[in-house]
Amino acid sequence: MTTVKIGIVNVTGYAGMELARLLSSHSGVEIACVTGRSAAGQKLNAFLPHLKGLKLVIDSEADPEKADLFFLALPHRESALEAARLFGRGKKVIDLSADFRLKDPALYPEWYGFEHPCKELLSRFVYGLPELYRKQIENASLVASPGCYPTAAILALAPALREGLIDSRIIIDAKSGLSGAGRSLSLKSHYAEADENVTAYATEGHRHLPEIIQELDGLTDVNSSEITFIPHLVPATRGILATCYGNLRTDASAADLQELYSSFYQDEPFVQVVSSPPHTKQVTGSNNCLVFPGIDNRTRRLVAVSVIDNLVKGAAGQAVQSMNLMLGFEEDSGLGGLALYP
Amino acid sequence: MTTVKIGIVNVTGYAGMELARLLSSHSGVEIACVTGRSAAGQKLNAFLPHLKGLKLVIDSEADPEKADLFFLALPHRESALEAARLFGRGKKVIDLSADFRLKDPALYPEWYGFEHPCKELLSRFVYGLPELYRKQIENASLVASPGCYPTAAILALAPALREGLIDSRIIIDAKSGLSGAGRSLSLKSHYAEADENVTAYATEGHRHLPEIIQELDGLTDVNSSEITFIPHLVPATRGILATCYGNLRTDASAADLQELYSSFYQDEPFVQVVSSPPHTKQVTGSNNCLVFPGIDNRTRRLVAVSVIDNLVKGAAGQAVQSMNLMLGFEEDSGLGGLALYP
Amino acid sequence: MTTVKIGIVNVTGYAGMELARLLSSHSGVEIACVTGRSAAGQKLNAFLPHLKGLKLVIDSEADPEKADLFFLALPHRESALEAARLFGRGKKVIDLSADFRLKDPALYPEWYGFEHPCKELLSRFVYGLPELYRKQIENASLVASPGCYPTAAILALAPALREGLIDSRIIIDAKSGLSGAGRSLSLKSHYAEADENVTAYATEGHRHLPEIIQELDGLTDVNSSEITFIPHLVPATRGILATCYGNLRTDASAADLQELYSSFYQDEPFVQVVSSPPHTKQVTGSNNCLVFPGIDNRTRRLVAVSVIDNLVKGAAGQAVQSMNLMLGFEEDSGLGGLALYP
Amino acid sequence: MTTVKIGIVNVTGYAGMELARLLSSHSGVEIACVTGRSAAGQKLNAFLPHLKGLKLVIDSEADPEKADLFFLALPHRESALEAARLFGRGKKVIDLSADFRLKDPALYPEWYGFEHPCKELLSRFVYGLPELYRKQIENASLVASPGCYPTAAILALAPALREGLIDSRIIIDAKSGLSGAGRSLSLKSHYAEADENVTAYATEGHRHLPEIIQELDGLTDVNSSEITFIPHLVPATRGILATCYGNLRTDASAADLQELYSSFYQDEPFVQVVSSPPHTKQVTGSNNCLVFPGIDNRTRRLVAVSVIDNLVKGAAGQAVQSMNLMLGFEEDSGLGGLALYP
Repeated sequence: MTTVKIGIVNVTGYAGMELARLLSSHSGVEIACVTGRSAAGQKLNAFLPHLKGLKLVIDSEADPEKADLFFLALPHRESALEAARLFGRGKKVIDLSADFRLKDPALYPEWYGFEHPCKELLSRFVYGLPELYRKQIENASLVASPGCYPTAAILALAPALREGLIDSRIIIDAKSGLSGAGRSLSLKSHYAEADENVTAYATEGHRHLPEIIQELDGLTDVNSSEITFIPHLVPATRGILATCYGNLRTDASAADLQELYSSFYQDEPFVQVVSSPPHTKQVTGSNNCLVFPGIDNRTRRLVAVSVIDNLVKGAAGQAVQSMNLMLGFEEDSGLGGLALYP
Repeated sequence: MTTVKIGIVNVTGYAGMELARLLSSHSGVEIACVTGRSAAGQKLNAFLPHLKGLKLVIDSEADPEKADLFFLALPHRESALEAARLFGRGKKVIDLSADFRLKDPALYPEWYGFEHPCKELLSRFVYGLPELYRKQIENASLVASPGCYPTAAILALAPALREGLIDSRIIIDAKSGLSGAGRSLSLKSHYAEADENVTAYATEGHRHLPEIIQELDGLTDVNSSEITFIPHLVPATRGILATCYGNLRTDASAADLQELYSSFYQDEPFVQVVSSPPHTKQVTGSNNCLVFPGIDNRTRRLVAVSVIDNLVKGAAGQAVQSMNLMLGFEEDSGLGGLALYP
Repeated sequence: MTTVKIGIVNVTGYAGMELARLLSSHSGVEIACVTGRSAAGQKLNAFLPHLKGLKLVIDSEADPEKADLFFLALPHRESALEAARLFGRGKKVIDLSADFRLKDPALYPEWYGFEHPCKELLSRFVYGLPELYRKQIENASLVASPGCYPTAAILALAPALREGLIDSRIIIDAKSGLSGAGRSLSLKSHYAEADENVTAYATEGHRHLPEIIQELDGLTDVNSSEITFIPHLVPATRGILATCYGNLRTDASAADLQELYSSFYQDEPFVQVVSSPPHTKQVTGSNNCLVFPGIDNRTRRLVAVSVIDNLVKGAAGQAVQSMNLMLGFEEDSGLGGLALYP
Repeated sequence: MTTVKIGIVNVTGYAGMELARLLSSHSGVEIACVTGRSAAGQKLNAFLPHLKGLKLVIDSEADPEKADLFFLALPHRESALEAARLFGRGKKVIDLSADFRLKDPALYPEWYGFEHPCKELLSRFVYGLPELYRKQIENASLVASPGCYPTAAILALAPALREGLIDSRIIIDAKSGLSGAGRSLSLKSHYAEADENVTAYATEGHRHLPEIIQELDGLTDVNSSEITFIPHLVPATRGILATCYGNLRTDASAADLQELYSSFYQDEPFVQVVSSPPHTKQVTGSNNCLVFPGIDNRTRRLVAVSVIDNLVKGAAGQAVQSMNLMLGFEEDSGLGGLALYP
C-alpha cells in the first residue's frame, strides 16, 4: 500500500512536535519532511528525544517536492505566505495558525495587527472543525484548523445554539494549561511564575473571540455585542476546560439537554456527551472532547462544560482528523490512542 | 503587657494549622490551647513539624477555662454545638464553619442536610467580613467567618452592586486550589487524580451559593433566581480566583470603574484595587485580596476578577482580622506578612 | 485473524487501567474480561471515562473460562493466591505484584510480612525483564513482572556490572512520581501535602531492595551489605529517575562507557542510551527507558541515570512486552506509542 | 529607636525580592534603596504587586549614600565589582553571589570562567554560614552568603564529619525546585518543559562543588577526589532536599546519631534535627533547615537528609541572618515566620 507523503512546517513548536507524534502512528502516511529553523540540520529524534525512531533531518525550509500535504505550525502572518507558496505549487495545506480562520479580512488588522497578505485565499480555506464542516473538509485542499479555545467553546455550545435552546447572550470562561502559550520563552510561562498560579488574561479581548463569534454566528444569529470570552491560565501543561453560560429559552430539563446533546453528537467519533462535569485529565493526549450540558435550574441558565487537550483536539489532533477526511482515510486513523490517565 | 488567651478547636485541619501559624506571630495573644481528636496527647510541633516552637500539647476537647476566645475549625454541625457550649461559658467565639453564616435557619436543611441545632444563636452571630461589617464585628462576641468563595465573590462585586452599576443577573466562575477541599482524604484530592487536572463541580448548586446570595442581597436587591455560581478545582494548593460577570447599567468606563473601586476600598488594609488581572500567586500566604474591575466593552459587561489565598483571607487570616477588631488590636496585627512569591 | 483473549484482574488500580489503555491498541489481543471489586457491575468506560469505547462490564472475580492469559494487578499476597488458582486452571499469568519476583521464600516474611502461600510456584515464575531474560520469558507460562524502581535501577547498572566496570558498592538514589504509590488514599498522596514537596522515605529499607539485590547479584557478585537504595517522592504523577553511583574499577572514559552501554543495548527496542542526562518527561506514556552512563571524573565514579514511566516500562508496558514474547507477537506490539511531550 | 538603612542591589530577581519580603518585617532596619535595571524608575510595589506597601522607587544603580549595608543579588562577576565599589565607600556588604565564597582565586577561572577582578578582597570576606562561622560573621563587614546546595549539604554532613563518624568518600544527591534557576528565561525553566519532569544536570561538575569541598574540608580532611555532588531539578518552585551518603567508621546506632546531631545543633535557632525524613514543604517560606541523620544498617552508610527553602535559608534568609549577627540584632529578627504549610 502506498502512503501519502506529509510535511510538517515548524516541527519544533508544540503543535509541530505533536503532529509528529500522531502521524508517526498513522499507517497511511509517511512523514517525508520536517522543518524548523533553529534546529535545521539536526536529526529530529536527536533534537527531540521523545520522538524515538524519527530520524529525519530537519530542513530549514519546506521543499514542495518532498510532500503532497503540508501542515503549517508557524507564527501568524508567516503562515499565510507559506500557505500561498505551497498551494501555488499544487500542494494541500492544513494551516494551524489563525491566518485563514477568519472570513472577513478586515478582522486581521484589528485583531492580529497585520494586513492580510493573501486575502484572495481566505474564501478557499475551509474551517477545519469536522463536527460542523465534515463534507466541506472532505472536498477541501486548504483547511484552516481551529484555535484551541474556539474548539472547546463551539463544541460546548453548538447543540444548544443550533436547536435554539439559548439566546446569544453568552459568556465563555475558559481555563487553559501553559502549553497553549507555546514554546517561546516568556515570563508568564516561566515555571516559578506560572506554578501554583491562576490568572485571567486578555480581558479586553482575546484574539480567539472573532473566531468564536464567526462560528457561533454560523449556528444561529449572534453578534459581537453579546458574547464575552475570558481566558485563564492554570498551572498544568495540557488541557482546556470551557465553562459556557447561556440563558435558556425553553423549559428543557437536564435530561432533555442530555438527550439533545447526545443526539447531536451521536455519530461523532471524538465528542462524547457525559452526565457529570468532565475533567481535563480524562482527555490528556487524546483527540476526544467531553461535553457536559449542565443546567443551573434556579436561574435557568445553561452551564455547558467541555474539555479537550489543547495540543490534540485543540491543535494537532484535529488537524490530523481533517487530513484523514481530505485524504479519504478513516477519520480516526492515527487518533485512536486513549487518554493518558492518570 | 498581658496577652489574650486563645483556643483553636481542631488545629489539625488546614484552617486550624493556618490559625496557629498566624497567631504565633501575633504579639497580643497567646495560643493557650489547641484541640484535635486524632492527635490528642501529642505536642503540636511534633505532629505538625512546620509549626516550629509551638510545644503545646494537643487536647482532645476544648476546656473553656483555658482561653477567652475560641476559633472553631470544625466540620459543619459539630461547630454549632461547640459554639453554643463555649458561648454558654461566656467565651467569645469565631466560627470558621458555615453553621452561623446563614441568617435563615431553613437554609440549613436544604443546603447542609441538617436541622440547625441552635437556631436561637443565628441572629447573634455577625458575618465576619470586615469590609462590610467592621463596626458590628468590633462589638461582637460571636462571629461567623465567611466562606472562601463568598469572600472572593463579594469583594469583587460589592462596589459595583452598592453603587448600582450592574444589575443582579450575575455569574460567578470561581477557580480554587485543592487545599479548599480540606485535609480529609478523597479521590478528588488524590495527587495523581488532581494533578494536571481542571474540573467544574457542584454545578447543580454549591453550598456557598446561599451565603453569596444573602450577602449580595444585603448590598442591593438580588435574588436566587439571578445568580449563578460555579466552582472549579485547579491543580494548585492555595488560591482562589473569582471571575464575576455582570451587566453594566451605566456608561461607566474602565477608568470610572477603577476610580469607583479604589474609592470604595481606599481605607481597607487588605483589599487592593489593581489595574490588570491579578494572579493568585500574588497573595499566597497573605491576607490580601486583589480586585480588578475589568470591562468587556463590546458587551458592556463588568468582568471583575478577585484573588485571595483561600486559607488566609478565605479562612484563618480573615478570622484573625475579625479577632483583632473584636479585641481592639490593630486590624493587621499578626497579618502583616507579605505574600510568598514566587 | 484470531486474537488471544486477555483478562485484567483489578483493572481499577493505576497499573490495571494502564494495561487496559495499552491492550486496547494491540491488534493481536482482545480484552475479554476485567475485574475490580469496588466497581463490579459497571461498564469499564463508565467507571473510567478516559477508557473510551471499552464497554466491558467489570466483573467481581476473574472467570478462568473467559481468557487465556491473565494480568494480575492485585495487592501483595492476594496476587499469589489468584495466580495459583488461574495457573491451576491452565492459564498463563503475568503477575504485576511482588509475589513471585523473589526466588528466596524467606524474603517474604522479612520484607512483606507474610509467609508465602505458594512457595512451590516461586521457581516456575520467570522475572519479566526482557533485557535480561528474553529467552526464558518466551518460553514461560508464568511471569513475575518487575517493580518500577528495580526496572530503572537494573537497566542503569546492568552493562557496567556485567562488564565488571564497577565494584558492587552501589548507591541508588531514586525519585518517583506519586502514581507509584497507587490509587489507595493516603495522606502522603493527598494533593495539598504532596504538591510542592520532595521527601525521602523508607530510609530503613524499601521492599524493592531485595529484588534489586537479587537481580544485580545475577549480573555479578554483589551482596546486601553493599547496596543502598533510597527512594524519594517528587511532585509529579508519572516518572522515575534513578541516579546510580558506583566506583569504577577501570580507566574507562565517558566515551568508552557510551560505547559499552550502546553496544549492550543495541538490539533492545525499549532502551536507548543517551549522551546527556535524560528527563522523565521524555518517556511519559511510553515504554521507553533512557539511560545515561555518566562519569564523575574527579572521583572516578559511575553516575548512571535512567528514566522510565513507572506505569509503563515500570509496570503495565513491561508486562505487555512480556506478553508479546510469551505469545509470539512482535515485541513492540501495542507499545509503539511515543512519549507525550510536553 | 533608629533603624539601620539597608540597600538591596538587584531587587528584581528572586533572591532580591525575597530579601525585600523578609526585611519589610524586620523592626530594626529600613529598606532605604533598591536597584534593578529593567525596572528602574518604577515603584517597587507596582513592579512586584506582592510587595504590598513597599513604595520605594527602584534605582538603576546603588547610591552608597543611601544605606549603611548593601545586599548584592547580582550575577557572578558583576557582584565582585559592585562589592569592591561599595566597600571602598565604607559600606558593609553581604554578597549573595559566589564571587567571594571561594578562598582560592584559581577556582574562579576554572569554575566560573573569569579571572577574579578583586582577589585582594577574597580573604576579607567571611563565609556566611552562621552555624559554622557565627563569631567571624559578628565581626565582619563583608560576608559571602553561601550557595543553596552547599547550605543544605554542609548542614547535613557537618556533625558527622566534625565528629569523625564518616570517612570523606561522600555522595551528595540534591533535588531542587525551579526557583533556584532564577528569574532569567530559559527552556529548562519553561513551564511546559519543567512541569511533570525530573532530571539530573551538571553531572560533569556543578559550580557549587568547589564551595562544598572547601567547607567540608574545613570540617575534616577531605579532597576533591572523594566527593560527588549531583544536582537534580524537580517540578516545584521552592525547596532543596539533599540526600548525603557517607561510610560510617564507627558502630554508631541510629539513636547515637540522633543524639550527636541534636547536640551539635542544640543552640541553633534555624536547624532542627528530626527523627524521620523531612519534607521540603515543612520549611517553605521559612529560614529553617531540618536534618535527618539516617542510617542504612545493612551497608553501614550514613544517609543524612536535609531540607531548606532555597530562597530563604538557601539565599535571602541566611543573608538576613548574617546581617542580624553583623549589626547586633537578635539572630532571628525578621526571620520568625513559620513555614507556609500546606
